[in-house]
Formats: sequence, structure tokens, C-alpha cells
Amino acid sequence: MERDIFENISPLDGRYYRGSVGLSNQLAGYLSENALIRYEARVEVALVSVMERHGIVASGAGREMLDAYKRITPEEVYKEEEKTHHNIRALVNVLQRYVSPDVAPFVHLGATSEDITATAQSLRLRDVFFTVVIPKCLDFTDSLLEIAEKEAATPQIGRTHGQHAVPITVGYFFSGYADRFGGRLLKMADAAEDLRGKLSGAVGAYNATSLLCPDPRGFEEEVLSELGLKPADFSSQIVEPEYLLDLVHAVLSAFGVLAQISDDIRNLQRTEIGEMGERFEKGQVGSSTMPHKRNPWNFEHVKSMWKEFVPRMITRYHDQISEHQRDLTNSASGRFVPEIIAAFVLSCDRLLRQFEKLVIDYEGIETNLRKTEGMFLAEPLYILLASKGVASAHEEVKQITLRAQAENKSILEIARSLESLKDVSDSEIWKALEKDPASYTGASEARTHEICAKWQERLSVLRKKVAAYKAEL
Amino acid sequence: MERDIFENISPLDGRYYRGSVGLSNQLAGYLSENALIRYEARVEVALVSVMERHGIVASGAGREMLDAYKRITPEEVYKEEEKTHHNIRALVNVLQRYVSPDVAPFVHLGATSEDITATAQSLRLRDVFFTVVIPKCLDFTDSLLEIAEKEAATPQIGRTHGQHAVPITVGYFFSGYADRFGGRLLKMADAAEDLRGKLSGAVGAYNATSLLCPDPRGFEEEVLSELGLKPADFSSQIVEPEYLLDLVHAVLSAFGVLAQISDDIRNLQRTEIGEMGERFEKGQVGSSTMPHKRNPWNFEHVKSMWKEFVPRMITRYHDQISEHQRDLTNSASGRFVPEIIAAFVLSCDRLLRQFEKLVIDYEGIETNLRKTEGMFLAEPLYILLASKGVASAHEEVKQITLRAQAENKSILEIARSLESLKDVSDSEIWKALEKDPASYTGASEARTHEICAKWQERLSVLRKKVAAYKAEL
Amino acid sequence: MERDIFENISPLDGRYYRGSVGLSNQLAGYLSENALIRYEARVEVALVSVMERHGIVASGAGREMLDAYKRITPEEVYKEEEKTHHNIRALVNVLQRYVSPDVAPFVHLGATSEDITATAQSLRLRDVFFTVVIPKCLDFTDSLLEIAEKEAATPQIGRTHGQHAVPITVGYFFSGYADRFGGRLLKMADAAEDLRGKLSGAVGAYNATSLLCPDPRGFEEEVLSELGLKPADFSSQIVEPEYLLDLVHAVLSAFGVLAQISDDIRNLQRTEIGEMGERFEKGQVGSSTMPHKRNPWNFEHVKSMWKEFVPRMITRYHDQISEHQRDLTNSASGRFVPEIIAAFVLSCDRLLRQFEKLVIDYEGIETNLRKTEGMFLAEPLYILLASKGVASAHEEVKQITLRAQAENKSILEIARSLESLKDVSDSEIWKALEKDPASYTGASEARTHEICAKWQERLSVLRKKVAAYKAEL
Amino acid sequence: MERDIFENISPLDGRYYRGSVGLSNQLAGYLSENALIRYEARVEVALVSVMERHGIVASGAGREMLDAYKRITPEEVYKEEEKTHHNIRALVNVLQRYVSPDVAPFVHLGATSEDITATAQSLRLRDVFFTVVIPKCLDFTDSLLEIAEKEAATPQIGRTHGQHAVPITVGYFFSGYADRFGGRLLKMADAAEDLRGKLSGAVGAYNATSLLCPDPRGFEEEVLSELGLKPADFSSQIVEPEYLLDLVHAVLSAFGVLAQISDDIRNLQRTEIGEMGERFEKGQVGSSTMPHKRNPWNFEHVKSMWKEFVPRMITRYHDQISEHQRDLTNSASGRFVPEIIAAFVLSCDRLLRQFEKLVIDYEGIETNLRKTEGMFLAEPLYILLASKGVASAHEEVKQITLRAQAENKSILEIARSLESLKDVSDSEIWKALEKDPASYTGASEARTHEICAKWQERLSVLRKKVAAYKAEL
Repeated sequence: MERDIFENISPLDGRYYRGSVGLSNQLAGYLSENALIRYEARVEVALVSVMERHGIVASGAGREMLDAYKRITPEEVYKEEEKTHHNIRALVNVLQRYVSPDVAPFVHLGATSEDITATAQSLRLRDVFFTVVIPKCLDFTDSLLEIAEKEAATPQIGRTHGQHAVPITVGYFFSGYADRFGGRLLKMADAAEDLRGKLSGAVGAYNATSLLCPDPRGFEEEVLSELGLKPADFSSQIVEPEYLLDLVHAVLSAFGVLAQISDDIRNLQRTEIGEMGERFEKGQVGSSTMPHKRNPWNFEHVKSMWKEFVPRMITRYHDQISEHQRDLTNSASGRFVPEIIAAFVLSCDRLLRQFEKLVIDYEGIETNLRKTEGMFLAEPLYILLASKGVASAHEEVKQITLRAQAENKSILEIARSLESLKDVSDSEIWKALEKDPASYTGASEARTHEICAKWQERLSVLRKKVAAYKAEL
Repeated sequence: MERDIFENISPLDGRYYRGSVGLSNQLAGYLSENALIRYEARVEVALVSVMERHGIVASGAGREMLDAYKRITPEEVYKEEEKTHHNIRALVNVLQRYVSPDVAPFVHLGATSEDITATAQSLRLRDVFFTVVIPKCLDFTDSLLEIAEKEAATPQIGRTHGQHAVPITVGYFFSGYADRFGGRLLKMADAAEDLRGKLSGAVGAYNATSLLCPDPRGFEEEVLSELGLKPADFSSQIVEPEYLLDLVHAVLSAFGVLAQISDDIRNLQRTEIGEMGERFEKGQVGSSTMPHKRNPWNFEHVKSMWKEFVPRMITRYHDQISEHQRDLTNSASGRFVPEIIAAFVLSCDRLLRQFEKLVIDYEGIETNLRKTEGMFLAEPLYILLASKGVASAHEEVKQITLRAQAENKSILEIARSLESLKDVSDSEIWKALEKDPASYTGASEARTHEICAKWQERLSVLRKKVAAYKAEL
Repeated sequence: MERDIFENISPLDGRYYRGSVGLSNQLAGYLSENALIRYEARVEVALVSVMERHGIVASGAGREMLDAYKRITPEEVYKEEEKTHHNIRALVNVLQRYVSPDVAPFVHLGATSEDITATAQSLRLRDVFFTVVIPKCLDFTDSLLEIAEKEAATPQIGRTHGQHAVPITVGYFFSGYADRFGGRLLKMADAAEDLRGKLSGAVGAYNATSLLCPDPRGFEEEVLSELGLKPADFSSQIVEPEYLLDLVHAVLSAFGVLAQISDDIRNLQRTEIGEMGERFEKGQVGSSTMPHKRNPWNFEHVKSMWKEFVPRMITRYHDQISEHQRDLTNSASGRFVPEIIAAFVLSCDRLLRQFEKLVIDYEGIETNLRKTEGMFLAEPLYILLASKGVASAHEEVKQITLRAQAENKSILEIARSLESLKDVSDSEIWKALEKDPASYTGASEARTHEICAKWQERLSVLRKKVAAYKAEL
Repeated sequence: MERDIFENISPLDGRYYRGSVGLSNQLAGYLSENALIRYEARVEVALVSVMERHGIVASGAGREMLDAYKRITPEEVYKEEEKTHHNIRALVNVLQRYVSPDVAPFVHLGATSEDITATAQSLRLRDVFFTVVIPKCLDFTDSLLEIAEKEAATPQIGRTHGQHAVPITVGYFFSGYADRFGGRLLKMADAAEDLRGKLSGAVGAYNATSLLCPDPRGFEEEVLSELGLKPADFSSQIVEPEYLLDLVHAVLSAFGVLAQISDDIRNLQRTEIGEMGERFEKGQVGSSTMPHKRNPWNFEHVKSMWKEFVPRMITRYHDQISEHQRDLTNSASGRFVPEIIAAFVLSCDRLLRQFEKLVIDYEGIETNLRKTEGMFLAEPLYILLASKGVASAHEEVKQITLRAQAENKSILEIARSLESLKDVSDSEIWKALEKDPASYTGASEARTHEICAKWQERLSVLRKKVAAYKAEL
């Protein structure tokens, strides 16, 4: 059923699809309705294969199912659903057409629809994480680490409340993003790996499979293991919702780190701040009539997407409740989960592209650092004085800063002139700070390297896991 | 750009599109990207037409623009956007191709992109409400009123806390739905009518149009009035967000009424309750192996959709904030607003279809009413006794009910046997209740008719407004 | 039951209570548990008074109830509830102690608990709006209008995407806040005025009151009218939840305007921007060691409160659903509604106090305006050129801006030097802009006065309504 | 500062405080403002103690601080804050009063306020989890396991879509709750254990402590280790917000399991279903006039609390963003986090009290099981027939069920009469089902015991951890 994508109402399948066709198609390979049907068919294959191994169905049945799986098309299934008004029944009917009469009665036998759907859902989500989401996040974390390492020693004014505080380095600030995002990435990987399937029947009590084999829980484990999954610790008609819930939480909390990054960079790109920003190609202008404009629109876009998707967590919490052995009120809503993943990956990719060409305005950074003429050295002045046991250190420095403002002098100048500060102002530490106030960056550089090294190692472990996973597919 | 709809990630443009092609296409006529472009072009036409009237551009310019509007295609605009990377600039370039060189410089002159986009957005939303959403809601309210009138006198046990309370009538309970939903419908109509446009330029201060005409606010009013809109009371680069916010609130609160209805009916359809439910066609079975199942899946679906869309209100509240004269963090998120409207209308339509064939099981209703053998008459017994000034009325009736439970007798039997209740039990009121406990429905029937009459009138006014609106299109 | 407020877990009743004792106590007069009990007792008085008028209870009963109302204390009621485990039953028992035996049986007669609670809730919310919330909002809007009028002609650079766009005036930007906040204030007033009560019994069908009088709907209207309320258009055990829902929406959307204001001002207070900010008293310093710091912590506080309270709207939407004639799942959650109102008023008051002493740094504003040396005049240059029918106007100006950047010249200088622009650059308009680029503020000043005048009028109407309301209390 | 608790606006500190004084006071010991101050002082003690060890401050300083910590009162601190307008500065000033002049300059030296506050917050939250929250959750899980074990073999109809499906056992259904809640409990314990502190100064770069010692990261680790904490992997002015975010997610997702339980039980308590419910004491009545009412109000209360608190997760996601090295927009909102924990524990406790006296109506359960006269045996009939390779099994059984409905016979009777089913109906399995349809519970009983055993073990491990933790306090 073809349709002009611009007739779609969803921005993800309309405007934003067009802006990212390659990645969107990759995602659709797992997250679309077509993909779901293919995954569901794979679960049906696994079920019959294990039945064969148990002697429930004739030998060769698994092989027949695998062939059938390759021959059916989603179109056929959709057409059949028009008759059955039931998607899994439609799939079963179509599969039965492609197997022998001996095998046909055994297709889907012992399973309830949700056994197939829930298992397929876990399978495709795990796959999309290990083949698309995690690799993209690894690349993104790499881009953060790269900037962090490169700028580990570039001083920059630290800001709290939007006000100048004391200096950090550009690299340190990126190492913090990497640390937070990396942490979320590990959470996502763990949660994706822990997605579960089920084959426990209509109410989760293995009623039907108990009739087919003596150890229905073992049978369930065997079928799921064919697909590389484990069964839920408990299931009613549905898999316990908390496995998926934890994954969505991991995704949305990772999205939050993207939002923080976006906010920070677009603030640093303000006309008055001008420390970094999106690259503009030679000749490109921000607005036809306002050439001074450099709109951080990609960062704004990511913030906006985050705003749109975060509240959807509430629906996930609400989907934890499914009355008794299940009601259907988590079904339609559950179908919107893939959009969250798509929006996150598209946003991550967008930032990645920005960071590959991020403009850092070193001159702007330095201008801002110097803006208060070292006023931030009040902090080390106070620390040094107090650490010599001067009880009035705090008040003394406060008076100096007030004088600096009143007399429009630099704090350095005044500090140097005071006899009472001689011990401090003659110390090596103070002399170094006097010479280069911007060097007051604490452990920024050292910590940047430590954090980067830690993450290089952690990411390398995750990369190996991803490679192993892909090799198995 | 064609694509298999089942490659879409959005359920609204995939699975649920297929389930409702007609209505979805109707909605896409206003809510799709294609529709947005057409509406934007209409705003550009209006702008040039009013310039012509003011002598800013040559006579005939408006006519030329109207022709251009009819000739351009969204495809052309998309193609142009690939060059400009700016959607409105692309539209302007394409329009300019179809007008004379004299007119071309005046296309879009004085406008900022957001003047066009914001105005087009208000226009298409108002249109979709007056041509699709409100008519559908009117039909739905009608279906509620119809059931209410028909069942105005059908007694049914009232329930609080899931427990039997005292009787109402089926009609009264539907009149309540009609009243609540009708109220929301009027809110939607008001908010849709009050959507606003703007033509105040890049920061809302009419900087550009001030150069073109002496009364730029008047000029804005004139352009918008061409489209049947009024300007926002104030605008920065964007229209004040509260107009749209109120509309979304109206939609989501109407959706909440649908959710209540869905919950109630699916509860009444429980195996143990069995008072009403979705119709099953002759021969149709709920589940191939569980023929006693009558799953209220349409009601469950609506509940599920509501759960998915309600939290999105938070994004709308967050979109109220756009720094200074605007930032772009409400742009991507704003593109998801039409989905809320689509989901609501599709859900409303689904319930409408259910109510057109709702099964009411009168036998089940009566069985439930009789289940406690008139125990609920304890209420009137207490009221009647107390209203005679008996101070101990409350305690006395309490003892009767305890006795009824202990002796497994009906409360009626015991009440009749007590001398102390003679005054009450010989009254006409009590005799009538004794004869037919189910008649203890208070003002249910009368109020049902009053409420229905009130809404017949209100809806008729709204229908006229809708008709007038359509006539103007 | 006394307790150290700092043993409270709620910040509103702990830390933030201490910061605003006067206003918090004023709010507690309506929003506390004590207040609720007093309001509930008032409803019981009204009920008996109307019974007396109808001859249901002996003459003088209303008077007795009024006396009882004045004599009971919340403590007594709490003590009684320890026995009854039912708050309204406890209240009734206590009231009965203070009336004569003739009247006692009629206390609460015909009412269900929720009749009393729902009516009291509407009553106290309406009262808190007309005596505290609306007056505070009026003052706040006034403070915005005052700044707007005062700064109507003070040019300031307009900003979009955090980038310099074209100029507005400080007053215009405040008039926009006033317009948006004022609009919300009117919504709040409307919604507060439309809060409803009920006296329709356990399932909303007037079952009990039908036994006491021939026109129970009329009786309900009469009782509520004693309290200045109207009945809900429909009620089950509870009042239709949409009346309150609309009020909370109005509050939260007004809160959103406060959040926008807070974000804007704290951005304008950034070290690099420095256009306005919180006043610091003489000698006060932002941080003991960082005297250059001027933290916009009050604006940050309001933003933070808004973030905390906005998501609570979702609970309100969920509270729209109460199964059948009511379940109790909206009861505990409903008790959290007053906190939303308290948080909003406290935030409004905090901003009001900031605006009474807002520091505007005119020098900073001018410095920023000049930062791009009139680059924003590219806009009028393009408009003026195109309006003369020059087809290439757009491209021509673009080239000028690129040259300005490349040659590090002002756009004015280049424009003046070009023969092709002579028509434009010799125009009066251009000459004025050349002389004072900051004068390119469009209709800012005029519109500011118009908007202020409109709101002066509207607020004066609302003030009269508030005064009339208070006079009646 | 004493205040009548019923003047509080917060239900948690007003009405619900009174309902649970003991537990609420226990929580206040960690979650109140008083508690926060005590924890903050403890962090200041640890800082000076480690300075002493490093020779930064004179020997004995740590001891002095510990004494000071014991002597100060929150009241003093509040009084001081009235002067300083800064809570941590107030605390420092007060502590300084109780130490010698030699030590005073070193109080708080090198720290920024947030070092103290963030560390104290992590500390008190970890403590409240290991001393109150986790123990309560352990008890609650135990109560679920106890019911599960006891009712492992009690058949009950399984329900999907509110419709009868096939049987499970009561115990199995409780084992599922235990499994889900237990899983969340482990998540909470993990997240609580992983809460982190910081001592990295105003922008997280150890600027100040770098002046005091050569290895400021090591110094931070040492101070925090005094308190049993680890430092955040990275910090700006604040600890990475994701540690707390994961904890709140764990709490809210555990709350979701409570909500599911509450919904299920209150549905099972419906008048028409009557399988289990809250115990009513002898003589107690649900409503004075409606003695048949058994309102599941405690379960409704928990559902309502869950609805109120779940949306607050959105604020937590928004609090992930703190511009640059921090802004204050997560400060006020962060103060509302303890309420979430309090509401969860109070709800958990309430359910625990219900489960200690849960009424199971075995008669009601059996009546419902028999309601459809074994119609659910259509499932095993179909499975058994198909597993014999009968291609038409599905259709055949469907016809039987239709016949059963049409002829008002039981499916068993018809199945027995059909020749074509002889193979199946003579099988041992079918004979057993015929004799006792309710025995069709699959692996319910066996799985219940397995799940319970698994959790007994896991909980025992956690109990040991909690005991070890308490021993250390």
C-alpha cells in the first residue's frame, strides 16, 4: 500500500523521514509494521522447530517452516487479516499455506497470539539496539571523547546560574558529557540485552503447552533460546512490562543528556557569548536579511524532540497496569514505543553530525575568560588566606572585591598592594595565578584524561559485544 | 515520494491508517505536510492581494498570485527546499516562477517565515475542526443522546467503588456522558474559532511592514481577514502559544470523556456483569478456542490511545516558553500537534461505530439490579424515617440491614414486620418501592429528558455555525 | 496537633512556608484541611436552612445550624473521625451535638458525603481565587504594565534563536508578557467563577432528595444559591470534573508565562549580556568569593517550581475518569490540587517582588544594540529596495552583508557607497535609520501603549468584580 | 516553628500524616528539612576530619567538629539563615561558633555549598532506603509470597479483557506480583547503593581543593569514604543527576506494581465478582445506609496516590538539564523528591496492612469458575485434537462451542457425544478435565513454588545486606 510520504501525519514518517532517509530506513527494518510481521514469523518457525525436536510434530517440520517464512510476504498477511480481523491468526493462516498438511495443524499450536507478538517485539528491539542504536551511540560518545581529549587543556570560564564562576577547560566539560552519556549507553545495552520473550499461553500458566510436553517451562526456554532470548521470570498473557520499561527509561535519560548538550551549545553560540557553534559553510548565511545570524537550529531541534518524547514515559508507566491476566489497554499505546527509539537515534545522529564539524571560537573563549579581569581569583585568594589560619580571610577578601568594583581596579592589583596578604601574594601558587588567571582550572586537564581513558576502555568492551552480536545474526 | 505505508514507524500512518483510510485521508487533507504547504501558499496570496489594494504592488498582482497558488505543487517546493534548506524560502522561490517580474519582488515582502507558517497552521487547524472534528463530535454526541432518550426509563443499578449503590437509569448515565462531552465540544469549537494568525515580522514589532505602510497593525488585520482570521493580541516572532494550548486542552479533556466511557462500557461487559457491550456478528466468535469471550477491544483501544496522547500536553505547556522573541525549541515538537487531533478523531469515530450497534443486555441489567434483593432500599427507609423526626433512624436502619444479612432475609421483609416502622411502611412511597425496588431511580428519567433537550438545542446552534462555516469555504 | 514545620516533608509546608509566612497563611485559610472542614460545615448549614424554608424541618433550624457552625472546632471533628473513620460522618455527628433534638435528624439528611465535600471544594477554591489569587495576579500584571509603559520607547535588540535579530523596545517586550499573563488571568477568573456544587446524592440521580421534595433539582439549586454557587450541569456521585480541570489548566498555563518571563530575565542577566536583573542591595554580594556573581536565583526558583508542577496536569486528566457513578481513585490525588494553586501564587508573588526592584542596565542594553554595528539594517535595506520593484534586491543585499563581514566594515558604509542603492539610501527613511539604527523598532512603542491601554481597561473591570465579590463575603 | 498540622497544605504533612504518624515520623527522620541539616553537618565533619589527617588543619580538629555537630540545633541554623540568606553559609557560621579559633577558618574550606548539600542528599536517601524503604518492601514482598504459597493450588478463573479465559491459581497470580515487585525492589536497592557524593567545588574541577592538596580527586574519595559514599564519576557543581534519576525510576516503577495489584483486587471485590477484598470487622458496615457495600477504599487510595506521583518523573527528566556547570532550576524542584519516596512507602505500608487481613471468598471464586460450565475446555479440546494431526481441529471445536451456545448445553456434553472426538475424549487427560474442569491450571502450582523459592533466596540475600548496613550505622 503505497502513499506519498507527505500525506503522512507523523513528522517522523514525513518531514523528518525525508531529512534522514538512510538512517530512517535502517530503523524501519526493525521498527516498522513490516518488520514486526517478519519477526513474528520467525517466532512461529522456532516454535515448530522445537516441537519437531520433541517429537510432537513430524521430522522436517522445522525446515518446512523456515522455507515458509522465506516465502510469505507481509502483503499476503495484510490481505488475510482483512478476513480474519486478527493479525496473528492471519499470519498463521498464511504460513499454513506454505507447509504440508502434516505440519499445518502444528503451526502456532500451544501458543497464544501474545506469545508470538511479545517475543517478536523483544527480538526486534534487541536487534535494533545492537545493530543501529548502540553503534550510533558509540560513535557519538567517541566524538565527545575526541573533543574532550583535544581540548583537555583549553581554559574556559565555568558558569553557574549563567554567571561567570571559576575556570574549567573545554575538554573537561566535554568529558562530563561523555561520562554521562556513556553511563546511559551502558544502561541501554544492559536493558536491551535483558529483553525477554514468553511462550506461556493465554494466561501465562502454560495451560496449553502443559498438554503437549511434561516440562512446559523448559519447552518455553528452548524455543526462546532458538532466538537467543530468555523467558520472562514471570508472565501472564504478557511479558512483565518492566523489562521494556527499563529500556525506555534508559533511552529517555540518554536523550536528556543530548538535551543538556544542546542547551549548553546553543547558549555558547549566543551573539554575546560566541564560544562555539554550528559550522556555516563558506558563503552560507543564516538569514537572507540578517547575515550576522548563526542560528543553532540543529541543537534547538534536538531539544525540541526531547521535549516531545520525554512525557511519553508516563504512558509507559501507565502501561505497567494490565488488569488481571491482561487487558488490551496497553496494546495501541505499546505500538508507539518504537517512535521513541527512532526519535532518539535521529537526534543522536544529528548531534553527531554537528560535532564532526563543531566550530570552537578560541578568541571568543579567551575574551570571555578575561571579561572580569581575574575577579574569579577571589576564590583562591580566600582559600590560600584561610588555609594559613587567618580567621578573617573570608571578610577580608570580600572587602577586596568590593573595593575592586568601587575603584574599578582588578582584584590582582589590590591584592598585590596589601601588606596583610603578603604571605599569600608572595607564594608560588599566587604568582602563577597572577601571571595567568586562566590557569586556575584545578584538575580539569588531568581529570579529562582519566575520564577519557576510562571510557575508551569501557566502550571497547561494548564494541566487542556488539561485534559478537552482529556476527551471530 | 512514495513509500509502503507499512514501512512507516508511526502507527497512525501505518496500522491505524489502514484501519480507517477514509477518515485518515480526510484528516491528511489538513494535517499532512502537503496540506501545510498549500495553506502556506494561500497566506502568501492574501499578503500580495492586500498589498495590491494598498497600491504597494501593481494592480493584478493578487490575481497572479492566486493563479500561481493553483499551479504550484508540493513536489516542486520540496525539490526547491533541497537547494535552499529553508522551507518557506523554497515556497517563495517556486511562487515567484509563476508570477510576472513586476510581482515577483513583492512575494513574501515584509513577512518573516513564521508569519506564513503560524497563520497557515491556525487556518488549517480551524478548517479541520469545522469540517471534520466538530462534525464527527456532533454525530458522536447525537449517538449518546439517542441512547439516553431511548433508555431514559430503563433502571440500572448505580455503582460507586465498583459496589452496588442505588439505582439510576441507563439513559441517565448516557445523558451524563453527553453533557460532559458536549461541554468539551463547545470548548473545542470556541478555541478553534479563536485561533489567530500574525503578520508582525521577525520579532513581532512590525519592523518590516512599518516601512511599507503607515498602519502595519491595520495591514496585518486586513491580510488575516482575507483568510477569515484575526491577529494574535500580541506576537513576538510567533503567535502567543496560548490560543493553540487552549485548543489542545479542549481536545485532550474531550478525549478524557471518551476514556471514561470506554472504561465504563468495558467494565459493564465483564463476564460477571454482562450489561452491555460490543456487538458480535452472527457466527463471529471472540476467540477461536474460547467462544464465551466477548472482548471489548474497541473500548480498550480507545483507552489505550488516550493513555498515549494525554501526556503530550506536557510538551505543549513546555512549548509555551520560547526565549526572548523566539527560539526554535518549539518547532519540531509543534509538528507533533496534528497527531493528537488525528488520534482523538479516530477514537471518537471508533466509539461512534460501537454505539451505533451497542448491545444492551436488559436481562443482565435486571439480574444485577435484583442481586441484593433490594438491600439498597435501606437508603429510602432511613430518609423516610428520619424525615419524620425519628432521632434514631440511622441506627435503626443499620440494625435492620445487619439482621437482613444475618438472617438471610430481604430488608423489605424485615421492615414490613417492624411496628416502629409502621408509619413509614404504610406510606404510599414505601409501598411503591416495596412493589418495585428498581423504581428507586430518583429524578433519573426526568433529568435525562431535560439534559437531552438542552443539548439538542445547543448542538443545533453549533450545527448551524458549522454549516455557515462550510458554506464560506 | 502541633508539629515543627521543619519536620514536614513538603517543601511548601516547610522551607517555602518559612520564606513566605504571611501569604502562605492567607492561602492556608482556604487550602488547608482546617479550612476544608469549615467550608463543609457551611454547606451543611445551607442544606438545613433550605429544608426549613420548604417546611421539611422545624422553623429555626437554620439559625441553630449557623450557631452550631460557629461553635464547632476542627479539633472536635478530627477526634470524632477517630471513631467513625469517616470524615463527613464525623462532622455531622459533631454538628448534631450543637443543635436541638428536633433538628438533629435533619442534619445532612438527603445528602451524600460527596455533596458536601464537592460543594465545599468549589466554594473554597472560588474564594481563594477571588480573595488571594486574582488580586495577586492583578498586582503582577500591573507591575508588567508599569514597566511596559515606562520603557515603551527604550530600544533593545530583539533576539531569535539566541541571536541578534532586529530591534524592539523593552516596553514592547513587557507588554507582551502582560498580554499573555492577562489573558490567562481572565481564564482563571472565568473558570473560578464557573466552579459548581452538587446536591444530587449518592449516584447523582437525586434518589434521596426526591423523597423529601417534589423538585429535587430546584432544591439543589436553592441550597447552592445560598452559597453563591450553581449546580453542575450533570453530576454522578461527583461533580463533572471538567470545571476544576479547566481551572487547573488556566493556572498552569499562567504559570507557563511566569516561566517564560523567568527564563528571559535570567538570560538577560548573563554575565555576557547584562541587560537587566535582580537588584542587589548596597554591600550585598552574590557569593562570598565570587563578587562578580549576580545570581538570578529568584527567576531560577520560579522556573524550577513551574517544572515541578506542570506535569501534575496529567493526574488531573487521569482524574477525569471515575468508574461508573464514581470510584475513589480521584480522591487522594484530588487532595493535591491546592498545592498547585499555592505554588503558583507563591511564584507569582516572588516575581512581583523582583519586578518592584528590577534593575535595568541601560548601558548594557545599548552596548548590545551596537554590537553588530547596524548589521540588522540589512532587513530594511532589502525591504526598501524590493519595494521599488528591484528583482535582485535580495541577492544584492546579501552580497553587501558578505562584503561587510569580509572587509570588516559596517553595512551602512557599504550601502552608502553603492550607486545602485542611491534611490534607497537617499530616502528619508534610510537617512533616519543611518543616523540611528536603534530606531528601527517598527511599531514597538505605539503597540505598547495600545496594549497597555487595553489591559488597563480589562483589569479595571476585573478589579470591580473582585471588589464586588469581596463585598459579598 | 510549631504549626497545627491541619494548617498544612500538603496532604502528606496533613491528613495523611495523621493517618500514619509512626511511619511518617520515621520518614521525616531522613526526609525532612531538619534531617537535611543534620546530614549536611555530618558532611562538614567528615571534610575537616580528613583535612586533619592530611595535616591541613591542626590535630584534634575532627574531634572538635564532631562535638560541634552534636551541639548545634537546626533552630540555630534557621535563625542564622535569616541573616545570611544562604542555608549552607548559615550552617558553617553556626558550626564555627562551637569550634576553636584555630579550627574555625577550616570549616567548609575548599567546599562549595553544593558539595555539602549533594552529598548529604545522597547520604540521607541511601539511609532512608536501607532503614525504612527496603525493610518495608521486604515485608510487603513476604506478604505476597505467603499468600502465593498458601494459595498455590487454589484454582481461579484467569481473565483477559475482563472476560473469562482459562484457569490459573490464586497463588500463581500472587507469585507474579511478588516477582514483579521483587524485581523492582532489587533495582531500588542497587540504585540506592549507587548514590554518590562530591567534593569537587564550584564548577566540579577541584579548583579550590587543588590548592589544598596534591590529589584532590583522592581527597574527595577519602572524605566521602568517611561517610560510606563514593564520588560521582564526574561532577560539575552538581553530582551527575542520573544516579538519583535511576532511583526515582525504580521507585515509580515499583509503585506501578502496587497500582496493578490495587486495580486487580478492587476489581475482584466488585459486587458481581466477589472473589476477595478488604476485611470488614464484625459489625462494621461499609455505609450506614447501604450495608451491602464493601468499598475497596484502601486499594483505591493507593491507585490514586500512584496517579498523583507518576507524572512527577517528568520533572526528574527535566532536572537532568542544568545549564553549563549548573543553574538553579533543579533546586526547588529537587526538594520535592522526598515526597515521592514518602508517598510510595506509605502506599506500600497500606497495602501490606490490607494483605495481612485479606479476605478470600473461596465460594465466590468457585462460583465464577463454574459460571461458563467449562466452556474454557474448548482450548484443551482444540490442542488435543490438533496434536493428533487433525487438520480441521480448529474449525471442529469452533462448531462445538457454537452448538453449545445455541443448544444451551455444556461443551463437555457435546464433546462426549461426538464420534470424531473419541480418540481425544477417551484419553486420560480429557477424562481428568471432564471430571474437574477447574484443574486445567497448567503449571500454575509448580511455577508458584519455583518462583517463591527463588524469591525467598533473593530476599534473604537482601535482608543480610540491610542488616549489615544497619549494623554499620
